Amino acid sequence: MAFSPLVNQLIEALRVLPGVGPKSAQRMAFHLLEREREGGHKLAHTLSSALKQVGHCEQCRTLCENRLCLVCEDGNRDHSLLCIVEGPGHVAAIEHTGGYRGVYFVLSGHLSPIDGIGPEEIGMHELLRRLQSGQIREVVLATNATVEGEATAYYIADVVKSKGIQATRIAYGIPVGGDLEYIDGGTLAKALADRSNI
Amino acid sequence: MAFSPLVNQLIEALRVLPGVGPKSAQRMAFHLLEREREGGHKLAHTLSSALKQVGHCEQCRTLCENRLCLVCEDGNRDHSLLCIVEGPGHVAAIEHTGGYRGVYFVLSGHLSPIDGIGPEEIGMHELLRRLQSGQIREVVLATNATVEGEATAYYIADVVKSKGIQATRIAYGIPVGGDLEYIDGGTLAKALADRSNI
Repeated sequence: MAFSPLVNQLIEALRVLPGVGPKSAQRMAFHLLEREREGGHKLAHTLSSALKQVGHCEQCRTLCENRLCLVCEDGNRDHSLLCIVEGPGHVAAIEHTGGYRGVYFVLSGHLSPIDGIGPEEIGMHELLRRLQSGQIREVVLATNATVEGEATAYYIADVVKSKGIQATRIAYGIPVGGDLEYIDGGTLAKALADRSNI
Repeated sequence: MAFSPLVNQLIEALRVLPGVGPKSAQRMAFHLLEREREGGHKLAHTLSSALKQVGHCEQCRTLCENRLCLVCEDGNRDHSLLCIVEGPGHVAAIEHTGGYRGVYFVLSGHLSPIDGIGPEEIGMHELLRRLQSGQIREVVLATNATVEGEATAYYIADVVKSKGIQATRIAYGIPVGGDLEYIDGGTLAKALADRSNI
């Protein structure tokens, strides 16, 4: 490459970001060095602090820099209703709906035996401790509607039910505003099977 | 947002990167915090050093951490042939062809009077000094084939010629491997007009 060593190093370092290939990394490096030095300094500083300080909430395991996250700390939430998701981004997505008043448990992704990711790796140990606290009344399984998400949901549902706790799964069906013509067959079949009185 | 303050700050700071919106920034932040802490530390550190140390080559104005860049320092290059480009990424693109043995002058983008970007802003002052050194025999204008790139090339060509130096413009035409059916009309017309003996 025709760049100076430090510029090359920066381009290489930027490739650690997801979805950033050599061209995007080059564009980002030039943008930071040519037009956004202030924003760049702030990014370097914030990234460094976040990596040092942000860990996981002791209770729900979402990313947070304190012992407990804002949701777990909130006395106004229903702490007997536990929603299980695959990652911190999913907590945000559900919070964004504004319709959920329970608390969360954040898995480290989903079960994937092929990649050596079993129950221990996704955080089942901590989840079991949480279930045994006696505080949980219902567990909502909000893992992805993918094969792995499904398998994870079924696995956890079995464990939850064995503790005498109710396990529920978020609904499948056509998305709100969806046009039947463009919905895939699997979703439509599920929507028909799960039809309800109107 | 449902994230802890420091996580939110990191997401916000990542948005300084070009082409990164709220969703991508969130994905990047989680990726760094959950799976790439080491790469993240390296990025923070490299970015910080690069911002501190990388400036512009005194001669060609490309990004580099030394007084002169590798190309300007190279005694084996033809220092009488000067290629003018719009940014450091374009130097890399031309170097990548392996066919150019001259040196460069890197403009800060192109002329854009509407945005208040005139000759001084893109580096004409430094270019004039370079032209007046008496070392330059030919100036190759390799600005983009956009309206602004064209205007910039014509403006600089006038200045170059007024100093008694030869000014050339990179060729327009159909890209190598291009299918005539898919080439836009403007390019095809230019390729026909600039036809040469075979």
